[in-house]
Amino acid sequence: MTIDTRFEANLQAERQRHLEELRQLLRIPSVSALSAHKADVAAAAAYLADSLSAAGMEHAAVHTTNGHPVVYADHLHAPGKPTVLVYGHYDVQPVDPLHLWDQDPFDPVIRHNKLYARGASDDKGPTFLHVKALETILKTAGSLPVNVKFCIEGEEEIGSPHLEAFILQHRDLLSADVLLISDTTIIGSNQPAVCYGLRGLCSLEVHVRAAKSDLHSGLFGGAVPNALHAMVELLATLHDEDGRVTVAGFYDDVAPLGDEERTALQQLPHDDGDYRMSLGLDELVGEPGYSTVERVTARPTLELNGLYGGFQGEGSKTVIPCEAHAKITCRLVNDQDPFKILRLLDTHMRTHQPKGVTVTVQQGDAAKPFLSDIHRPAIQTAVAAYRFAYDVEPGFMRMGGSIPIVEAFDRLLKIPVVLMGFSLPEENFHAPNEYFSLDNFDKGLRALIYYYTHLERV
Amino acid sequence: MTIDTRFEANLQAERQRHLEELRQLLRIPSVSALSAHKADVAAAAAYLADSLSAAGMEHAAVHTTNGHPVVYADHLHAPGKPTVLVYGHYDVQPVDPLHLWDQDPFDPVIRHNKLYARGASDDKGPTFLHVKALETILKTAGSLPVNVKFCIEGEEEIGSPHLEAFILQHRDLLSADVLLISDTTIIGSNQPAVCYGLRGLCSLEVHVRAAKSDLHSGLFGGAVPNALHAMVELLATLHDEDGRVTVAGFYDDVAPLGDEERTALQQLPHDDGDYRMSLGLDELVGEPGYSTVERVTARPTLELNGLYGGFQGEGSKTVIPCEAHAKITCRLVNDQDPFKILRLLDTHMRTHQPKGVTVTVQQGDAAKPFLSDIHRPAIQTAVAAYRFAYDVEPGFMRMGGSIPIVEAFDRLLKIPVVLMGFSLPEENFHAPNEYFSLDNFDKGLRALIYYYTHLERV
Repeated sequence: MTIDTRFEANLQAERQRHLEELRQLLRIPSVSALSAHKADVAAAAAYLADSLSAAGMEHAAVHTTNGHPVVYADHLHAPGKPTVLVYGHYDVQPVDPLHLWDQDPFDPVIRHNKLYARGASDDKGPTFLHVKALETILKTAGSLPVNVKFCIEGEEEIGSPHLEAFILQHRDLLSADVLLISDTTIIGSNQPAVCYGLRGLCSLEVHVRAAKSDLHSGLFGGAVPNALHAMVELLATLHDEDGRVTVAGFYDDVAPLGDEERTALQQLPHDDGDYRMSLGLDELVGEPGYSTVERVTARPTLELNGLYGGFQGEGSKTVIPCEAHAKITCRLVNDQDPFKILRLLDTHMRTHQPKGVTVTVQQGDAAKPFLSDIHRPAIQTAVAAYRFAYDVEPGFMRMGGSIPIVEAFDRLLKIPVVLMGFSLPEENFHAPNEYFSLDNFDKGLRALIYYYTHLERV
Repeated sequence: MTIDTRFEANLQAERQRHLEELRQLLRIPSVSALSAHKADVAAAAAYLADSLSAAGMEHAAVHTTNGHPVVYADHLHAPGKPTVLVYGHYDVQPVDPLHLWDQDPFDPVIRHNKLYARGASDDKGPTFLHVKALETILKTAGSLPVNVKFCIEGEEEIGSPHLEAFILQHRDLLSADVLLISDTTIIGSNQPAVCYGLRGLCSLEVHVRAAKSDLHSGLFGGAVPNALHAMVELLATLHDEDGRVTVAGFYDDVAPLGDEERTALQQLPHDDGDYRMSLGLDELVGEPGYSTVERVTARPTLELNGLYGGFQGEGSKTVIPCEAHAKITCRLVNDQDPFKILRLLDTHMRTHQPKGVTVTVQQGDAAKPFLSDIHRPAIQTAVAAYRFAYDVEPGFMRMGGSIPIVEAFDRLLKIPVVLMGFSLPEENFHAPNEYFSLDNFDKGLRALIYYYTHLERV
């Protein structure tokens, strides 16, 4: 099976224009976490809606929410054929530490067939592939062989706080037979894989308060609590020396990995030495008894994402800090409920409160873990599409990341979810020097054209 | 014994002008730690030199160093009388966290007879008292009964990195019979005390490095080292659960406190409940077996002054930080050598380096502890000056802070050092809302006039 040769010719003819339009989108600094970028997030939504209209999609609109907007569009002229709902996000992560970028994160540059920019890989690039794949089919063949709806949000990087309400308010508008998402990675540059599992997520902030103001370490040092000492003492209770999470009950709802799945995960191409070298590490660390692939996809974690208190400027300041702050996220698997985990963490922080200080916990995002049935036609069509575009046998993988809304779509719309990504694990998303491999840009367009022109059942 | 009634009349007549001139000095943001304030530090030096000239001092000059300048001036017209070298500093601590100030730290405001501004108490206010005390004597009596030299530096808050070289280069210029410093606290608002001991200091920064860049916690979480986890694990090894420092050898050169000194320290007015309440604390913490006064003056400490890594912005960022940084200072007593302590800390950090990361230690400031003989005439004259100005029997105290240069003056010039302060412990130096009590401004001027007009021997 293959795709129409006219599509291939059109893709080649239009490649430079497609890339330039993606670069336009990447120039918009749509950082959803920072309120200073609110107008930029709106600008990215407007640009995407215009792109969808220009591609031939209908009813393209920027729908307001109580947060950043949702971009909707559809093309519903294939009666009797499945309706595909495409989810993606046009918001991006913050860019700091900015000094570690080799370039302006919002001035996209192509080097060695890689497109460097914040959001190139997560998720503006992969989302934009759907727009261009459908544009190619529509402009070349004059019609689409399936029905398509787009629901592209602007709050994925902050935990999609308003998308669930949007789905509930627009159930009919969003009704579909299958949800298709390109926001996951494949295994390697020529090894595509359908993702059948995602880790869940919960986030929290911990605040430690000591005296009513910072104090001089010479005059008060020795007799008063130091918020940083207390924070360090508290955070040191979260893991044992092997890296296991020591919060009571944390692992209670984690099912043991089955032999069949462990064997399958072992067969995924992975080399600890290469992995370690690519990350610039002298050694890997992690939970004893599990492989690296298991650790990053099938086991839960608790990570400090940020920690700060006291003086951070140049030189020294002899101060006893009165406050300290930590940002924490957990990755969850199987039946771990994010709200239950947040409760366990809250209890842990309260029972381990160091002497002399007050600890408060502020709950953040929550997303349940996700696992899907790989035998469904909607997923098998994705396998065939990868096979066509990459000319290798695709794999199946679990992913360590979280797409909070996948679980919500799964629960609210009750339709199969296909996670068909085109990003590589090493593309620095959420970090400096994010890029998108243009090899996967080209193969991704072909895989998606295959998918949209071969999907018969879900 | 008393002071000339003409001095008293002059002080009352000139009070508003004296205060306004101090406010002018406080308006200059001479933050020595921040290179952006280099010109402000120079401006404060120039203002002080002008003030000394206007007060009648001679040879007032701003001497360049390899860092911030030193202000010198003298008045040497009392042959056969002692020469007093006045040391002080015109630089100030950084002001962050700025949001905790009730006002602009560099827009001095008087409320309830307190002068609020960064540097008001540490040390622009007390240093300025010497200028105005000598001005009062000179302008009223026409001459000074002692010889006086000023050596006011601009790098005290960053550990006086260039003052020792300055002293060595200007031994003759600075030669004197006694060193007089007002950069210590008294016990309470009507309880002056000569300070006979200072803690020493050493500072260091600790850097933890993991992967070559920040990593996505979903994709890599579980298998790679987190610089913040490693930093927390490392810093948690520095104290035991009671707050004792656990660095091997740290207490080796700390002599046990003698019964006589413990008894004297117990008699200083201090109430743990009042102290705790004034700081907004639910409870005090500290090394078991020692009183609060002993803990903050006669026992060594290791304090985290700053700690940071990862995301600190609004919201959450699911990142595994690749670097983390901590700023640490130790307060030292007795025979603890700051360079030996830095070596012990370096060894500790290397032997406790967590798995998977690289730890580096950057040494900072170093100052030896100081203890002086309270029976010398130079100190007994200070006792008499306090007794006159405050009309109570003065005390003797050790101070928990460090004035790095005291030990250097002691070692290089081999002259007695008199620590005669006018600040209160609660005046928020090194913290938001620093202030200087104007009651001590007034009494301080009278005490210093007494000192300069009664010093016969050192």
